[in-house]
Amino acid sequence: MDTSQVGIVMGSDSDLKVMEGAAEMLKEFDVPFELTIVSAHRTPDRLAEYAKTAHERGIKVIIAGAGGAAHLPGMLAAYTPVPVIGVPVKSSNSIDGWDSVLSILQMPKGVPVATVALDGAANAGILAAEIVGASDAGVFEKLVAYKEGPMKEKVMGAVERVKGDYPNNYDD
Amino acid sequence: MDTSQVGIVMGSDSDLKVMEGAAEMLKEFDVPFELTIVSAHRTPDRLAEYAKTAHERGIKVIIAGAGGAAHLPGMLAAYTPVPVIGVPVKSSNSIDGWDSVLSILQMPKGVPVATVALDGAANAGILAAEIVGASDAGVFEKLVAYKEGPMKEKVMGAVERVKGDYPNNYDD
Amino acid sequence: MDTSQVGIVMGSDSDLKVMEGAAEMLKEFDVPFELTIVSAHRTPDRLAEYAKTAHERGIKVIIAGAGGAAHLPGMLAAYTPVPVIGVPVKSSNSIDGWDSVLSILQMPKGVPVATVALDGAANAGILAAEIVGASDAGVFEKLVAYKEGPMKEKVMGAVERVKGDYPNNYDD
Amino acid sequence: MDTSQVGIVMGSDSDLKVMEGAAEMLKEFDVPFELTIVSAHRTPDRLAEYAKTAHERGIKVIIAGAGGAAHLPGMLAAYTPVPVIGVPVKSSNSIDGWDSVLSILQMPKGVPVATVALDGAANAGILAAEIVGASDAGVFEKLVAYKEGPMKEKVMGAVERVKGDYPNNYDD
Amino acid sequence: MDTSQVGIVMGSDSDLKVMEGAAEMLKEFDVPFELTIVSAHRTPDRLAEYAKTAHERGIKVIIAGAGGAAHLPGMLAAYTPVPVIGVPVKSSNSIDGWDSVLSILQMPKGVPVATVALDGAANAGILAAEIVGASDAGVFEKLVAYKEGPMKEKVMGAVERVKGDYPNNYDD
Amino acid sequence: MDTSQVGIVMGSDSDLKVMEGAAEMLKEFDVPFELTIVSAHRTPDRLAEYAKTAHERGIKVIIAGAGGAAHLPGMLAAYTPVPVIGVPVKSSNSIDGWDSVLSILQMPKGVPVATVALDGAANAGILAAEIVGASDAGVFEKLVAYKEGPMKEKVMGAVERVKGDYPNNYDD
Amino acid sequence: MDTSQVGIVMGSDSDLKVMEGAAEMLKEFDVPFELTIVSAHRTPDRLAEYAKTAHERGIKVIIAGAGGAAHLPGMLAAYTPVPVIGVPVKSSNSIDGWDSVLSILQMPKGVPVATVALDGAANAGILAAEIVGASDAGVFEKLVAYKEGPMKEKVMGAVERVKGDYPNNYDD
Amino acid sequence: MDTSQVGIVMGSDSDLKVMEGAAEMLKEFDVPFELTIVSAHRTPDRLAEYAKTAHERGIKVIIAGAGGAAHLPGMLAAYTPVPVIGVPVKSSNSIDGWDSVLSILQMPKGVPVATVALDGAANAGILAAEIVGASDAGVFEKLVAYKEGPMKEKVMGAVERVKGDYPNNYDD
Repeated sequence: MDTSQVGIVMGSDSDLKVMEGAAEMLKEFDVPFELTIVSAHRTPDRLAEYAKTAHERGIKVIIAGAGGAAHLPGMLAAYTPVPVIGVPVKSSNSIDGWDSVLSILQMPKGVPVATVALDGAANAGILAAEIVGASDAGVFEKLVAYKEGPMKEKVMGAVERVKGDYPNNYDD
Repeated sequence: MDTSQVGIVMGSDSDLKVMEGAAEMLKEFDVPFELTIVSAHRTPDRLAEYAKTAHERGIKVIIAGAGGAAHLPGMLAAYTPVPVIGVPVKSSNSIDGWDSVLSILQMPKGVPVATVALDGAANAGILAAEIVGASDAGVFEKLVAYKEGPMKEKVMGAVERVKGDYPNNYDD
Repeated sequence: MDTSQVGIVMGSDSDLKVMEGAAEMLKEFDVPFELTIVSAHRTPDRLAEYAKTAHERGIKVIIAGAGGAAHLPGMLAAYTPVPVIGVPVKSSNSIDGWDSVLSILQMPKGVPVATVALDGAANAGILAAEIVGASDAGVFEKLVAYKEGPMKEKVMGAVERVKGDYPNNYDD
Repeated sequence: MDTSQVGIVMGSDSDLKVMEGAAEMLKEFDVPFELTIVSAHRTPDRLAEYAKTAHERGIKVIIAGAGGAAHLPGMLAAYTPVPVIGVPVKSSNSIDGWDSVLSILQMPKGVPVATVALDGAANAGILAAEIVGASDAGVFEKLVAYKEGPMKEKVMGAVERVKGDYPNNYDD
Repeated sequence: MDTSQVGIVMGSDSDLKVMEGAAEMLKEFDVPFELTIVSAHRTPDRLAEYAKTAHERGIKVIIAGAGGAAHLPGMLAAYTPVPVIGVPVKSSNSIDGWDSVLSILQMPKGVPVATVALDGAANAGILAAEIVGASDAGVFEKLVAYKEGPMKEKVMGAVERVKGDYPNNYDD
Repeated sequence: MDTSQVGIVMGSDSDLKVMEGAAEMLKEFDVPFELTIVSAHRTPDRLAEYAKTAHERGIKVIIAGAGGAAHLPGMLAAYTPVPVIGVPVKSSNSIDGWDSVLSILQMPKGVPVATVALDGAANAGILAAEIVGASDAGVFEKLVAYKEGPMKEKVMGAVERVKGDYPNNYDD
Repeated sequence: MDTSQVGIVMGSDSDLKVMEGAAEMLKEFDVPFELTIVSAHRTPDRLAEYAKTAHERGIKVIIAGAGGAAHLPGMLAAYTPVPVIGVPVKSSNSIDGWDSVLSILQMPKGVPVATVALDGAANAGILAAEIVGASDAGVFEKLVAYKEGPMKEKVMGAVERVKGDYPNNYDD
Repeated sequence: MDTSQVGIVMGSDSDLKVMEGAAEMLKEFDVPFELTIVSAHRTPDRLAEYAKTAHERGIKVIIAGAGGAAHLPGMLAAYTPVPVIGVPVKSSNSIDGWDSVLSILQMPKGVPVATVALDGAANAGILAAEIVGASDAGVFEKLVAYKEGPMKEKVMGAVERVKGDYPNNYDD
């Protein structure tokens, strides 16, 4: 496989359904990635090793998803200055997602985690592509095209659909 | 110094004022302890080493205080089956303490942290003494005496104090 | 039956399904326990009696589960210095679990309750085993083996499972 | 002293400043009361005894103030069918008052506590007078007079005060 | 019909299913009551009239259930010193019940509402009976009998049921 | 079509089901409106253009519905002094609606948004009619008739329905 | 005085300091207003009378500020279809403002309140001017001028001020 | 000045004190930046222009700070695929910071904002440096040196300081 530029990790394969949203967006922008399971609480040495070796293996961004008392993103960031994107997952043991959000977002001075919305794995994938695109003109152009193309088109398609029931003067 | 039975750790000496509440209660019950600084995010290797060596150094309970996205108690518990008591600290970077509470309390299945009240370091000290006292009759007796003595006396002293302004039939 | 070292109590048998998570973990570590129903609000005298006699009956740790305005763990701790682990239960009359969590966690100085995650009965069982293991080398070794064995294996099994769809360089 | 009809209790004399608001309102309506300190967690036997003897001593309503994991009102209600009014106190160990409110309000089916606003001791006093007034025409008349007199007058006084700076057509 | 001592009101018959819990408890204690629909926002004059005439019609306690921005209990209390019990209802337009709870509980000084748990209509019924029972020995005795009888029996029944799977030394 | 006086916009046609509540109320009061899709984040230029041209096209009120980090109402208000009513929508990516509510309500000084209840599109429609009615006697009369007619009748119909099971003295 | 087009009311003159923010903005746009004290809970008949007579006295918009269990805006809206703007006030008896916000915002279907930010009285004044401006070209022009003038100028003044310490390419 | 790689913007110079934390960290890592004022609600056209020209002016990352209903970071991200870091500011008009956090974090699919902790501007600066460092070995090395140097040293300095009062076996 190509050298991965983005590493997607999560604490359990029960998070896979949510986290695949990140993988899909990276495929959209042709950014090579790897995806695996790393648990902060059950395999802390694997976490440390994964983070410490990420840079030398070519990883430019890490995306980490976790729920409840979510320590995975913050602990990865403790070991490496590779930017870490945290995805709070509304897992079954979560209090409406608040625990996941706060334990990823509220990192102390010195160790940032780039937090996205609850279950916002797709946005984590786009953000990772934006970070790669900050120095890769090809990826940047694909992001521009995505914004101008599918994203706008989805809205304008809905504009047309509702016109049948609700004509409006603005679009005429 | 005596072999410490309890290890008190915190991420920064700015937490010391709160966490000394644990030290004071352990002195009250003559339980030997050590106290030092361990940061999950700035010294993750020190955290791992501290936790991995705790049992062999004679530590029976660890008390860990942390604020914000508080990962110290949970990551210590990831490395050792020595019971870990977590003290959520309402640090300056906290959202009213909710982040500290939730990121310590909501640990996933397999890795418990015994969480006490926000800034509840004194109770962490008592709880550590209770854990030691579960197999140490001398410490258990001191806990019984404390409950029957100073704790009740403080209430009954207040009963007497308010009697001046507010006589009551119950205590007469 | 053997002398129980852990007492598991709850306010109603509607909490049994959650609280059996504690029983299962204690069986895993061969720690003898008893389990019964004690209601703080409907049988307060039974609560007082249960707590006052716990130590003399050989109980080293009490696990108490309760929902809503959850007073059972804190009132047990009022009567005995045996360590009390509180399990906030998201019962049907709960406001998303916040009432259960806060009325167990936020105990005043002098009377700690070791609180675990919402519906975290399995972790309460492990924590009770850790407390017993603080002075029982056999139980401690079983906890070490559990951490090194089933807990890590479950993660590594998931690592293998996701490899089919998502190859990664790290594990190769 | 006269037989008290209302018993005001609180866990510590640090709550006295708030809870005197209840005493002042009972004086306003000439309802005899007693006031003392009872701690659920530090003097549970005193709590049980106070509640069990309240009815026979002539107490018709109990007002109980407590903060944090506030178990005093609910446990009093566990022991007696005398109506219990709970005052959540925003004590120093409280998380913005949410713990006090929820651990008093969210009582399970069978054991109600009449909860008033955070630090709402004055309203607890008025509510106790209303309960006494449900069968005491003299107290009821005083409550009517209070509503029609001082309460309305305070508003109409403010109406006059702001007229200087802000004339309005409604009151002319 | 007998003169009602308790008036149960709610804003819509969609709240009836919850509020019938109050009616059932009043039947249990033979306290005569009436039940009807009064909307603070859609029939404010009916609300004012209901409250102003309650005392003269023999009503000793009003139970009012409402959801969302719940103004019914507080506005009834504005018009009458008859004690008002508020039941926060988790209606379909509620934000997890928080709006209902806070807009009933947090009444300003001078106008208390005795608030019970979210959807706690049964407890509102018991509390109303306790208020009637404060001056009616017959009702008081029924409340004592209920506490000593069905409430304790329900717990002890559960104690027996779980004994099959979980023997315990305490009850033997 | 008639010149629309009210413009209803939303970020996606997935919000249409909720937002049609506004359209229905405007039909009730014969206030002409248009309805279309405008996304703050995917079509920001369309948003700017829609807002800037609203006044000249005859729009007197804009109703904007959005969920999650809901920027549509506030950004419309940034571009035009036409009053903007914001409807927080509990969309699938929302944390129980809190994000929608707070990101619409908490606008800075200078740029108000008239916020209604979570998913309160019907009320947004009524409020828009009230704003039109402030200078249109015909619409105002329809609002008066609605309040006196269907709204009261719905309550009184429920009064009659519950009388079967629960007779009450008040309405006899 | 001129016929007031806007009525500003609040429950107590302790809210005056916050609510004067509305008066100042109405003066800015030359919209005549009246301001007085009306308490929902202490003067409910005054509230009803104020609301019922508002339209005939020429009032086109009502601004109502209240804290805690804030019933004033919603009850005014119950009596009149004149649009009511609610200002949640963070009064001393409020739980961080949440009670004020929720008890104003979460109105049931049929009776909207246009809610602004916590303590957002200035925005209430601007919103009232926008509602008047919907049919008054003079006021509308003043709103346009305010947006284009002082509001933008305040930002551009800050742009200049920070340039001294932080030169930027964008504005050069 | 050098071509800025990072653009720091905020809605008002009242946020400058917090946001200078980002500037300080970028100086630490020698990453050239610009800093200016852009208001989403008062200068929406300036916002659009700033975002649309950022990439062509050489900006690789935008840091945006805002409080209350914070729309600045999300609207910048609507206009450009340059990565946007959002800093929730606990401004004076904020409800304990929750509004700022949620209106920045909870962006819809397609438009991510990399959110950091409340008032976490320093971490925003470090994260921006990490993003630049993903393709700039010089900046990456400075980040590594910072993690290994000052961050660890600050902890070890505290370890030494507390040793005086609290000797510990671990560090001896």
